[in-house]
Amino acid sequence: MKNITIHLPKRLEIGAHAATKVGEVFGAARTFVLATPHTQGFVDQLGLSGQVTVFADIPGEPDTACLEAAMAAAREARPDLVVGLGGGSVMDVAKLVAALWDGDQTLADVAGPNKVAGRACALVQVATTAGTGSEAGIRALITDPGAGAKIAVESPHLIADLAVLDPVLTYSVPPAVTAATGIDAMAHCVEAFTNVNAHPVIDGFARMGIDLVGRFLARAVKDGTDTEAREGMMLASFYGGICLGPVNTAAGHALAYPLGTLLHLPHGLANAIIFPHVLAFNQPVAEAKTAEVAAALGLTGDLLPAARAFCEGLGVEMRLSAHGATEDQLDRFATDAHGIRRLMNNNPRDMSVEDVLGIYRAAF
Amino acid sequence: MKNITIHLPKRLEIGAHAATKVGEVFGAARTFVLATPHTQGFVDQLGLSGQVTVFADIPGEPDTACLEAAMAAAREARPDLVVGLGGGSVMDVAKLVAALWDGDQTLADVAGPNKVAGRACALVQVATTAGTGSEAGIRALITDPGAGAKIAVESPHLIADLAVLDPVLTYSVPPAVTAATGIDAMAHCVEAFTNVNAHPVIDGFARMGIDLVGRFLARAVKDGTDTEAREGMMLASFYGGICLGPVNTAAGHALAYPLGTLLHLPHGLANAIIFPHVLAFNQPVAEAKTAEVAAALGLTGDLLPAARAFCEGLGVEMRLSAHGATEDQLDRFATDAHGIRRLMNNNPRDMSVEDVLGIYRAAF
Repeated sequence: MKNITIHLPKRLEIGAHAATKVGEVFGAARTFVLATPHTQGFVDQLGLSGQVTVFADIPGEPDTACLEAAMAAAREARPDLVVGLGGGSVMDVAKLVAALWDGDQTLADVAGPNKVAGRACALVQVATTAGTGSEAGIRALITDPGAGAKIAVESPHLIADLAVLDPVLTYSVPPAVTAATGIDAMAHCVEAFTNVNAHPVIDGFARMGIDLVGRFLARAVKDGTDTEAREGMMLASFYGGICLGPVNTAAGHALAYPLGTLLHLPHGLANAIIFPHVLAFNQPVAEAKTAEVAAALGLTGDLLPAARAFCEGLGVEMRLSAHGATEDQLDRFATDAHGIRRLMNNNPRDMSVEDVLGIYRAAF
Repeated sequence: MKNITIHLPKRLEIGAHAATKVGEVFGAARTFVLATPHTQGFVDQLGLSGQVTVFADIPGEPDTACLEAAMAAAREARPDLVVGLGGGSVMDVAKLVAALWDGDQTLADVAGPNKVAGRACALVQVATTAGTGSEAGIRALITDPGAGAKIAVESPHLIADLAVLDPVLTYSVPPAVTAATGIDAMAHCVEAFTNVNAHPVIDGFARMGIDLVGRFLARAVKDGTDTEAREGMMLASFYGGICLGPVNTAAGHALAYPLGTLLHLPHGLANAIIFPHVLAFNQPVAEAKTAEVAAALGLTGDLLPAARAFCEGLGVEMRLSAHGATEDQLDRFATDAHGIRRLMNNNPRDMSVEDVLGIYRAAF
């Protein structure tokens, strides 16, 4: 077995209304909460006392200007505790604010792996979606509008002291978003599971995540207040986040990226559309593991139509054309996706630019 | 699902020679290493620089005097980093030294749950056995010779910053100890799995641990330098440690305790002897989960003889009489074990004092 490093939040609070533990466990004199206009409504469920400052302007794709604004607000608030209360975007910004607000490092200084000097204040991540798994990890992505690309920061100092998985906070996520982000969480597990860098330890977390998706995603889509199903999906997302750390994703996420940058599809939806195609493409070189995935999801018969029907059955519109893509865009998508070598090189089966184009055509 | 709190080391380093990461990741000016006369031989594998002080006098069952001696040495060394390099006893002492050396709290002050005020210095746990899972947890046990009992300290401040699972450090564990401690690790998983307080999240870790024991324990016993098998068993032990935290053990460990205190059997051996009996006793009320355990271990047919044969096949002498027990001791064992209500009350099937005595007789 290869050696492996795994980063984990040192404390997990899991279950309905677990969010109230934030104040109980990490009671701080000054707390700075990152949120969205929607998730700021949950702040009073965190059990906080002391001075609480809420910065609720985190958009879906936070950019450098957003980070700067959040950082300025944090410098004003001088928090002992930073809380990310939201999905992946919010939690990513929270990581950077917690690590950088009281120091001299800029975003440019810390871009890349292992550049963050340290972190003095506590960091709590309270997930309000089940998909990104950002609460489990040490990576933060910020859009650089100048370069038209994402800046990735990765550091052990970005790991949460406490991650909260409170299913009640996800009740209001609409069915379509629940479905797409749930498939994204599964994609994190599956792409790590069949990865060229797959590791038996991470396989264990991947299996748990895939199994939970098979058992609970349809229920969470059908009834948003199904606490057990919502909790199962939050765990699947968390396990997916663990998979992202040391192993990461592969061709599926590479093919999803252009759908985000060029077609402006939400990350979860883009991954849901691509998922069945890459699962089927990789099947010949990962037969046993693909069979495990199919069994966990209850897929029978020919894999591609079965996996696609699984996603459609959850209410995901799987045709790129229905999302506004035009046929003449597909070449550009293919070139871009094929160029994301850091992910494409993780794929167990080599994928030519023609293979990529073929997948987009099949998904058109 | 019930709410659950899980504590985890925030970083894991897993694999052959992963121990060298200690210095690389947690390089400290002053490091204080807790060890045994045997494990101090591994200190030069930790990649440490700066001032290194080694306290290598931790016995198998550390008592309050041992802790005091270690604490005095630590106060002299004034470490930034405390390293536990050994089995459960060493790691338990390391937890307390790291949390208490620079403060005013005594052991009496912190006995029980959530009494430790904080911890300033870093704590790294480097396991050199696969059994206790102490590196995964927040509990420390110290023998109080005056009271003839163990003092338990439990606090989130006792969790490691880094846990190292380096299979090379377990190469020299003799086959008999490998077998007994490996069964103990499995018992942690199984007793949490079939516990009245069982939780689906912990069940996931229990399943991974039991599966690893089924795949790797016999290989690790047969060839101590089988790196993959040793690594698998270290992981099983770590997962067992996670099971111990929020769920804990049940009747198996309760019945093993008198064999430690009165017959002076090592903890792992005591648990290995008891394991098949409690597994079979609980079968009627935990049929599905017991069947999963049996399948993972490859047990077929009548459960008690099959599980006993599994242990004997690993070279464990399963008869209490062969370990020096006399028949007239069994009543006392039974009274004592039955009285450990904090564990007996976790058992899925009520066990009368006659049931307990019956098990000791069957194991005699």
